[in-house]
Formats: sequence, structure tokens, C-alpha cells
Amino acid sequence: MLVRLIYASRAMEPDANLIESILAQSRSHNPVHGITGILCHGGGIFMQALEGGRSAVNALYARILNDPRHYDVVLLHYEEVLERRFGGWTMGQVNMGRINTNMLLKYAEKPALDPYSVSGKVSLALLEELMATASVIGRT
Amino acid sequence: MLVRLIYASRAMEPDANLIESILAQSRSHNPVHGITGILCHGGGIFMQALEGGRSAVNALYARILNDPRHYDVVLLHYEEVLERRFGGWTMGQVNMGRINTNMLLKYAEKPALDPYSVSGKVSLALLEELMATASVIGRT
Amino acid sequence: MLVRLIYASRAMEPDANLIESILAQSRSHNPVHGITGILCHGGGIFMQALEGGRSAVNALYARILNDPRHYDVVLLHYEEVLERRFGGWTMGQVNMGRINTNMLLKYAEKPALDPYSVSGKVSLALLEELMATASVIGRT
Amino acid sequence: MLVRLIYASRAMEPDANLIESILAQSRSHNPVHGITGILCHGGGIFMQALEGGRSAVNALYARILNDPRHYDVVLLHYEEVLERRFGGWTMGQVNMGRINTNMLLKYAEKPALDPYSVSGKVSLALLEELMATASVIGRT
Amino acid sequence: MLVRLIYASRAMEPDANLIESILAQSRSHNPVHGITGILCHGGGIFMQALEGGRSAVNALYARILNDPRHYDVVLLHYEEVLERRFGGWTMGQVNMGRINTNMLLKYAEKPALDPYSVSGKVSLALLEELMATASVIGRT
Amino acid sequence: MLVRLIYASRAMEPDANLIESILAQSRSHNPVHGITGILCHGGGIFMQALEGGRSAVNALYARILNDPRHYDVVLLHYEEVLERRFGGWTMGQVNMGRINTNMLLKYAEKPALDPYSVSGKVSLALLEELMATASVIGRT
Amino acid sequence: MLVRLIYASRAMEPDANLIESILAQSRSHNPVHGITGILCHGGGIFMQALEGGRSAVNALYARILNDPRHYDVVLLHYEEVLERRFGGWTMGQVNMGRINTNMLLKYAEKPALDPYSVSGKVSLALLEELMATASVIGRT
Amino acid sequence: MLVRLIYASRAMEPDANLIESILAQSRSHNPVHGITGILCHGGGIFMQALEGGRSAVNALYARILNDPRHYDVVLLHYEEVLERRFGGWTMGQVNMGRINTNMLLKYAEKPALDPYSVSGKVSLALLEELMATASVIGRT
Amino acid sequence: MLVRLIYASRAMEPDANLIESILAQSRSHNPVHGITGILCHGGGIFMQALEGGRSAVNALYARILNDPRHYDVVLLHYEEVLERRFGGWTMGQVNMGRINTNMLLKYAEKPALDPYSVSGKVSLALLEELMATASVIGRT
Amino acid sequence: MLVRLIYASRAMEPDANLIESILAQSRSHNPVHGITGILCHGGGIFMQALEGGRSAVNALYARILNDPRHYDVVLLHYEEVLERRFGGWTMGQVNMGRINTNMLLKYAEKPALDPYSVSGKVSLALLEELMATASVIGRT
Repeated sequence: MLVRLIYASRAMEPDANLIESILAQSRSHNPVHGITGILCHGGGIFMQALEGGRSAVNALYARILNDPRHYDVVLLHYEEVLERRFGGWTMGQVNMGRINTNMLLKYAEKPALDPYSVSGKVSLALLEELMATASVIGRT
Repeated sequence: MLVRLIYASRAMEPDANLIESILAQSRSHNPVHGITGILCHGGGIFMQALEGGRSAVNALYARILNDPRHYDVVLLHYEEVLERRFGGWTMGQVNMGRINTNMLLKYAEKPALDPYSVSGKVSLALLEELMATASVIGRT
Repeated sequence: MLVRLIYASRAMEPDANLIESILAQSRSHNPVHGITGILCHGGGIFMQALEGGRSAVNALYARILNDPRHYDVVLLHYEEVLERRFGGWTMGQVNMGRINTNMLLKYAEKPALDPYSVSGKVSLALLEELMATASVIGRT
Repeated sequence: MLVRLIYASRAMEPDANLIESILAQSRSHNPVHGITGILCHGGGIFMQALEGGRSAVNALYARILNDPRHYDVVLLHYEEVLERRFGGWTMGQVNMGRINTNMLLKYAEKPALDPYSVSGKVSLALLEELMATASVIGRT
Repeated sequence: MLVRLIYASRAMEPDANLIESILAQSRSHNPVHGITGILCHGGGIFMQALEGGRSAVNALYARILNDPRHYDVVLLHYEEVLERRFGGWTMGQVNMGRINTNMLLKYAEKPALDPYSVSGKVSLALLEELMATASVIGRT
Repeated sequence: MLVRLIYASRAMEPDANLIESILAQSRSHNPVHGITGILCHGGGIFMQALEGGRSAVNALYARILNDPRHYDVVLLHYEEVLERRFGGWTMGQVNMGRINTNMLLKYAEKPALDPYSVSGKVSLALLEELMATASVIGRT
Repeated sequence: MLVRLIYASRAMEPDANLIESILAQSRSHNPVHGITGILCHGGGIFMQALEGGRSAVNALYARILNDPRHYDVVLLHYEEVLERRFGGWTMGQVNMGRINTNMLLKYAEKPALDPYSVSGKVSLALLEELMATASVIGRT
Repeated sequence: MLVRLIYASRAMEPDANLIESILAQSRSHNPVHGITGILCHGGGIFMQALEGGRSAVNALYARILNDPRHYDVVLLHYEEVLERRFGGWTMGQVNMGRINTNMLLKYAEKPALDPYSVSGKVSLALLEELMATASVIGRT
Repeated sequence: MLVRLIYASRAMEPDANLIESILAQSRSHNPVHGITGILCHGGGIFMQALEGGRSAVNALYARILNDPRHYDVVLLHYEEVLERRFGGWTMGQVNMGRINTNMLLKYAEKPALDPYSVSGKVSLALLEELMATASVIGRT
Repeated sequence: MLVRLIYASRAMEPDANLIESILAQSRSHNPVHGITGILCHGGGIFMQALEGGRSAVNALYARILNDPRHYDVVLLHYEEVLERRFGGWTMGQVNMGRINTNMLLKYAEKPALDPYSVSGKVSLALLEELMATASVIGRT
């Protein structure tokens, strides 16, 4: 059973190294477990989408909740799916600081990544626009 | 929570300076508050669309209602939205006096801006056609 | 409030002058009242579509019913609309005698204009096909 | 082909005799032509629903438009129908002056019969509520 | 054109007198203007639904925004409607402090009136449940 | 923003005391945080539904994932909701061992609580049937 | 494959004997072929509904078309069906001359059986109302 | 009222002359009666679609049922339509023996014309694919 | 994953003992494997519905196909389901010879069990009517 | 009546010869019986789609269930269809070992053919993507 899970969190000490280390970890862990996804970050906030088998995604989410490098972890979206949307990335990456202001404003109150103040549906729509506009970087 | 609000009003003393001053005010106030939108004017009538966070848009609308430069302010449309439609303009502008007569007639009883005599849905459709036909001027 | 009204009627004495005089009248009367539309004629039968404000269209329809140049006036379609479909013509014209036989047959039992024997929906579909195939003549 | 037609008009000189004479006329004319319906009146305004064959209803509406006892006749609703809703009355009658204020307010801006300021859909809904609440008087 | 408008606000100095004075004002002002509605209050928060003609409701809302007895006025819901839902009350009243805790929890994060943290759809649903459970007090 | 979350888990050492201790904890913790829900248990498996504000439910779920008394925690269902379905229980309880065999079979391959082998939609349907059949015990 | 077929026809010389002879024939022929249905008659017009296997109903309809006792046979409705609606009658009978005038008017321009002037959908609706009001006579 | 009728039949003695004679007959008879359509044949089976006024199509179908050159005539599809689909052919022709095997298999159990073993919906879909692939021959 | 499977077959030598032996076998085998269902029989034809886990139902169906007591086994319906409809019977039984003729005719060309000549949807509808009319016998 | 059937199975001893022998058998058997389809294989797992007449497909499936070269045969999907989707292949072939990893992951928990762990809908979607991407090899 395939599921899609999206969550938000706040970095303890945001810096480029943190993001690199998270991505490196994802890229070594995920292929073995059949997990794919995208990690967006900007202004000290993370938003990550995970897709894969139900048990595998839940096991990973339990580890994520205990990761001391971030806090205030909130589920934005979770559903059983017939097919993946983010299957092309072991863990794609979007630096929201480099995204066009208009695209950020389209889905947020201010031109910044702020999943905490909107519905999970809005966050999913933002992720789809990021894919449609080829804003995702990563090994496919 | 993002909302879209459209209202109509009548200018006390319509002249080009008035419009310029409204636009200037919008362009200095809106970016800070994450508000985007479009201002149409013609024949002494204004129709303005505002999008942004629910509190920011409501705070601005309260100020607009008290602005002595216009009167007969009427809400045409208000809804919570998943994404902005007018996110590309700090405050776009449409001088309805320069719009093709057929387009005006398509949504009105007479070839003029007259949001007072039609449903809010019609006014929203007119705004979308103005965007689709690249009739909106302004800094995006 | 915008409405669309389509009616059929039979000419008392059909001739080209009659049609010209009706069109001339429409073109002088309609712009002032914000009315647009299309007049089809063929085999002594008229079918006219009118769009505009609810009162203006009703006032015109009352005059049409009393026009001694035609009889057997029957409403085919009437609805409140969000936008006009025939807004491009003060009063467009279609001489059904010059229309392709297949198009006539598509919406009628015989290859002729015969709104009396079909539903108003069929007459509206015929008008839309006439527009889509650029069969309407007139000052736009 | 069955149709339903609803129109509004304003009485020249409203009085009880006028209403009685209209109803008497309806009741003698309608059965022969297969027409059924309801007449609402209040505050000098009429709203009448007519159902029957398409030609019969149109012929009657042409006569109504020329009746000097009322003016400002406006079509509110017209559609081809599979079955009548007002088939139980040769011409039912509703004196809106005797209707509960809350029911009037439910469909109008003020507690009075005012079809001129609302959509035809609202007028149809009012007629259905009048039937549902047994407010229609008349020989069935 | 009928509209429904729901807003929330915070009382400057909540006390029973304030509520009584607001209700008294509503009950003297509203009937003349064809406005009906419901006022909920609890914990220093107001939520009021207004229904009536589009201009009348907008004129009243402009006055409400300038009323110094409350602040933080936010529109929750606004739509053109075919019929009123709150037509039975000049201004019904609900003291949320007397409502069953389960009903409050059903539509809120905590058992209290808190329209600021939920979608306008939730507030409308709460109002409908209050009506369905006969929790509204007032002269009908 | 209200959310509903349902998860399954396996007890480390199932016994009646464990269930009592979980329920006691829920009943002391949940009211303060506006959380309501239902706990089903049977054959060493738990299925719990939680409803409340998005942050409150997520904070609780993070604690649940780290609770050493159970393991193999899997999210079955998560959605933003307009209203609670389980708002009547601080933490209702269902001992699946006492439920009619036919009801268990209706939603499972074998007559036992087994959320691991079915879609989250099935688990939600089972919970609703348990409520509809008054199988939930607890302080409301 | 089950089908439903409804047709209209005009009697050559309508009299009670004709109807009796048709019904007698139906009742001896139909059970063997798995055909059920209803025969309505009034004013020299027949409307018959037939249900059964596709070949059986077509074979019977070919015979009916050649029956010299009626003429002007017109198909009103034909569809493949999952279940019969008229399965309760070998051949039920409705004498439209004994039906309430209001029910006749509900589906016709005049209070008489007239399937020739309406859509087949209207005739099917009339048959269903006849069943719902227990107007069908016959051995079930 | 326009209708579409599709039937199948089996030729008594299939040969090319028979088909030519049927087509010749159709082409002389149909234009006068406003009938258009398509005739498919293959392996001794006919499938013909007819469109036109309700009475005209029914009169023709009665003649077809009595034509001694074929037997086992079965209605496949009959409906009132707003517009013709086969209006481009007085009587188009498709020799199924010359159609691509894959197209035949798409709608049948074996690669042959066999309307007797499938639903009328399938036969209509086959006819539409024949038109879409320009497989119909004939004077338009 | 729960599935529902319905098949038809023909008995080699139908007699009451055969049915009893099939039912006895079902009732001993099914509870262990979580399978429930209904067996209809009449005129030497069987129609059986099976519900349970996907592997369990498939394993049983493989055995059924090889059972020498019947032949001509045809799948009528197969779908993944969220909940069972026949969960109340280890193996319910319906002797179609004792069912009301009208109910049989409702879903068949002749008053007999004949799943071979109709769509699987019709067979499912028949099974549901049998349940709704309490025609199923068996240990629940 | 056309049906589509998809099943999964596990090869006893997977090797290229086995697949060749299955395909050869299909290609000699299927055309005679009007069966078309696709065979996917990878990692010792088969997934085959069959389309054709209901009896023909069922007869073939019974033979498949008894074929000793595979085991664990499970129906994934079965439905009556109006038209074939796999009509272009006597028996198309897809070697999943040569398919792009992303496409495999899109419909599975791991990048491999694994119909046992997902819904039949997912397997059908995978087959359609294989066709859309021209991944099917075979004589059409």
C-alpha cells in the first residue's frame, strides 16, 4: 500500500551544512526502503514530502520526529495513493530562497515558505507547482 | 489563511490624480502586508480585488471603508482560497475607458464598468478576462 | 441582471426588404439599450437571439410581439446569464438559405430553419454552431 | 412540448375587483387551452406562473403583455418541462398580504412581494414554498 | 440581491449590558432595513450573521466596523444567496457560555467560541447546528 | 484548524492494566488540550482515533510514537476536518473482544481487529459503525 | 439482455372489445416469452410498455407493427435495463378515461393521453406515476 | 423531434447486389424524408443507423421490418437527440470486410461484425470509431 | 484486502444431496479462512457469492474450478471492497425454486435463475434483493 | 459480452524458455478464441491481462489456474467492458527488468513488479502506462 506524507518542521540551527547532511542521509537511506520525495527549505523552515510503502514511510516518520536537528514537526498531508507523484527523486531539493517571489505569494500570506499557516492542500499545491516549473533539483 | 475580496465603490471626485494616489498608496502599503490585487476604474466607479492573509485583507478593507475619497462601498465577492489569482501585481491597474467595448458588454448591461447591477460572480469573471487578455497594467 | 432570450416567428410577407428594415431598426435601437444579438431567417421563418439587461430585453420583446410584420411568435429559450454569448454583434445576421445543408440537417428534421418543431436547446446549439463556423454577418 | 413561464407586472390601479376579474378570466380561458398556474399579488405587484403547451402559453403571454390593466411586464423564468408543478390549479391565488412575514423575508430584501429585485430562481423557490405551505387558494 | 455576511470581533469591555445594548440597537434598526440575523457571544468574542439586501447589509457592516465597542473585526463568510437561513430572527441571540461543551468542541479546537482559528465554513456549520438544536433565543 | 488522526499499534505486553493506564492518561491529558477520541483494542492490537487542533494532535502523536508500551505504530488516516466525529468522548473505549463477530468480519479478513491489512478508509468505516451501534464506552 | 420498449399507436376502431382482445392475446402470449408490461388506452390512443429479453421484445414489436387493428405506431422509448419496472404484470391495464384529470395534465398539454406530442421521457414518467398511484389493473 | 435508431439484421442471401440495391433505395428515399445514416455489412450481417424526425424514422423502420431480404431484425439503440451524428451521409456505407482486424476486435468477441452479442452502447461506439477513422464511404 | 467474487456454474447431476454436501463443506471450510457468502441454486444452475481476504477467496475459487460436481464455471463479478455485504452468513442458501416469480422475472428474461444471459451487475442486484426480502436461509 | 481479467502468479522455475513457451502457446491459442492481452514478467512474477468474450476468457483462466508452471494465482481485476484496451496484441510482452526504475517505483513500494502488495487498480494503471510509453513488445 503506497502512501504520501508531507510534514513541516523548524530547524534548530539552520545552515547549509544541515541541509546537506539531511539530503545525504535521505539519499543513502531511501533507495533501500523504496522511499522517494522532495525537501523544501527556506527561512529556517522545512517541508518534506515522502512517498513509499505504508510501513516504510511510517518507520521513517517516527525517526524524523525524534531527530534533534528540528522541532515543531507537524503533519500537513497523509493519504493512501494509487501512484507516486514524487517518484522521480530519491530526495529532490528546493531552496525556497531562490524561488520567484510571485510563486511563493501564490500559496502564502507572505513571500516565504510558511506551511504552518495554511491547509495541507495548499502545501501539496505548492509542491506540484514547484515540480511543474522544474524548480526541484536532485538526482532523479 | 488566504482570502480574496472584491468590492466596488464610487469616487467622490474622479480624476487621474486620485487614481494615481490610490495606486501609489497601495504599492507602498501592500508588499509589507503580503497583499496583491487589481484596481479597475472607469466612469467614476472603482472595482478592486484584494488577496492576502485573512487578517491583513480585513484590516485593509476597514481602512478602505473609511477612506473619504469614495463612497457606496459594496462587497462583491469574498472567499477563502487555496491560491491567489492576482498574485502577480502589487496593485495592477485597468482603465476601463480603454477596454474594447465588446469585452465590457460581455459582462454588463451597458458598455461600462457597472458592478452594482450584477452578481459578484460576474465581476470575478470580468477580472479574469481582463487578466487573460493582458489588459492589466502594473509592476508585477 | 443580464438575460438571453431566443424566439421564433413567421414573416407576414417575407422579402429581402423586410429583413433589411428589421436589421436597420435593430442597429439603431439596440446600442442605446445595451442589446446585442443575432437574427437568422430562411423560408419565411425568423429566429432571433437577444441579450442585454433584463428590463431592456423584456421591453424590446414586448414591442416585437406587437410588430405586425410577423406572427406566431414563440419563446424558445430564456435565461439569466453571467456573460453574453452574442455580445459581438449589434444585430448579426444569418441567411439560412446560404448555409451548408449538412449543418441545417444536424439540428432539424429537414434541411431548413424550423425552430417550431424542436426544443429550445436545439435552437441554441444551432446558433452556437453558426457562430463557431463564422456564418454570422454583421457589424461587430 | 410543455413549458413553464413566470412573469411579474405592476397593476395600473390595484383593487380587489381587478384581481377577481383577472382570476375569472383565467378560469374561463385556461381549461380550454390546457393552461394551469398560480397568481400572486400584493402591494400592487403581480407574479404569475403559467404552465401548458408551448404555443398555448406563448399565445396567452402575448395577450397578457397587451393587457392595459398592468404594465412593466418582465419575464422571470421560462423553461421546457417534463411535468407541471402547478397542474393542480386552473389559476390558484395567493394574497401575499396574508402571508407570514418570515416567509416573505426568506426570499426578499423587504417583507413584500418584490420579484423585480431578485433572480427568477428566487421567485420560483418562493412559489414552491407557497405550495408546500398550502398558501395557495383556488379550485383545483 | 440577497446576501449573507458573517463576521467575528472582540469586545472592548465585555459585559451583559454591552450585549443587551447591541441587541436593542439591532432590533430597532434591522426591521426597517430588512436585515435579519443571529449574534453569538462568549468569552469576549462576538460572531454575528447578517442577511438582507446587498446594499443594506454592506451599509450596516460599514457602521459595525466603526463601532468603538469592539475591535479586530474579521469577515468569516460572505455570499449572495437565493434564500435566507436566519430569516426568523430580527436578531437572534446565543450565549455560548450556556451551550453544551460537546457542541462547542465539535467545531473548535477548545470548548469555546473561537472563529478566529477556523475556516468560515466551520463558523457557518456551527450557526446551523445552533439553529437545528434550538439554541437561538429571540423574537422571531 | 481541526484534524482527525487514526493510527494502529501493537502492545508490548497486552493486559487490562495497560489499557486502563492509557485511558487514564488520555482522560487527564486530553481535556486541557482539546483532544477527543476513541481507543479500540483487541488481540494485542490498538487502534486510536484522535481529533483536535492541528498542533495539539501532532504534539500528542509525537509522544505516542515514543511510548515504550507499544510498537509498530502506523498512521491509518489523517485529514483536516470541518467538524469532529468523535467529539463526544474524552477518550471512548471499545473492547473488540466483546464485539459481535459479524461486525468484525464486515471490515476485516478474519473476525478480529486487524487495521494493518486494510486501507485506512476501512478503519474509519469500522469506527463509525462502532459509534452507530453504541459500542463505545466512556465518559462523554 | 433485458430491454424496455414503449410505443404509441392509434386504434383503427376503438371499442372495449378491441382492448379486451388485445389484453387476452397479451396474457396468453407473454408468459411463454417472458414478456411483461402495461397497456394504457384512452381517446383511441394506445401506449404500451413491454419488458423482456431483447430478442423476445423485438419479435413481439415486429408483430405489433403489422397488427391491422392500429396504425401510426411510434417508438417512444427503448433501453437496455438491469431490472424490469413493469415485471409485476403479464399485461397491466390503465383506462386513461378513469384517471384523475390533474394527473393527466401533469404530463400533457391537454387532459388526455397524448404521447405523440411529448418526449419519450415524459411518457415513461407518466407510466411510473400510474404505478405509484396504483392506477394499473391486472393480474400480477 | 430528432431521433437516432440503430438496428441489426441478417441477410437472406447476402451478395454485393443486395447491398447496392439497399443503398440505392436509401439514397432515393431518405433525402425527401430528412433521413440520414450509415449501413455497415459483413459476413451476412447488417447494422444500420438512422437519424431524422421521430415519425419519419419510425415509418421507415416499419418498412424495414417487413423487408423480405433480411430477417432477425433487432433494435440496438434508440434515443431522442439534440443533434445528428450521422448527418453527413444520405446513407454512408462501411464494408466491414475491409476494416482493420484490431478495430473489429476492439468492440467484439471475434474480429467480425456481431451486434447480436453485445450491448447497443458497444455498437454505437463502433459506429463512432468508424466515422472518426474515416472508414465510411458515401455521398455526403 | 477484502474482495467480493460471484460466479455461476452448472451442476453435473443436480439433486438435494449435492446442495447439502456443498453447503456442509462451505460451512466447515469457510470460518477458518474468513470467508462468508451465499449460494443460490435452481434448475441445475448455481450462483455463489464469496467474500473474504483476496488470497483466501482466490485459493477457494481455484478449488471450486476443479470441483467435478459442476462445470461451465463463469466469473460474474469481482471487486475489491471496503466492507462485506454477505458477512452475515458462513454460507447462506437460496432455493430459487421457492422464490416469488415476480422477483425472478425482475432480473431475468424468464422466471428462472439464469446468470449466464445477463451482466454481472444484474446478478449482484438480484443477490441484494434476495437479502433485502429475507429470502436467504442459513446460520448467520 | 466482453470482459477484461488481470491476474498475478509466481513462476515455479523462472527462465527465459518458460516465458517464450507461454507466449508461443498464447499466440497459437488466443486468435482462435478472440482473446487478446499482455504478459508482464520480472523477478519470477507474472502479471497477465486477458480480454475477450466472457466464456472464452473464463475457459482460459480455468486452464491457467491448473498450469503447473506457476502457482499463487490471484485475480487482480475483472470487469465487463464496452471496448478492449489491449486489443492490439495477440499477447504483448513486457520484460519488467528492462523498464525504467522510476516507472516501476511510481506504482510499487519497491522498483519491481509486485502486484501482490497493491490494489488491482494500481496494476491496471501500470499496464496503461506501459502501453502509453510503448513498452509493450509483440505482434499486433
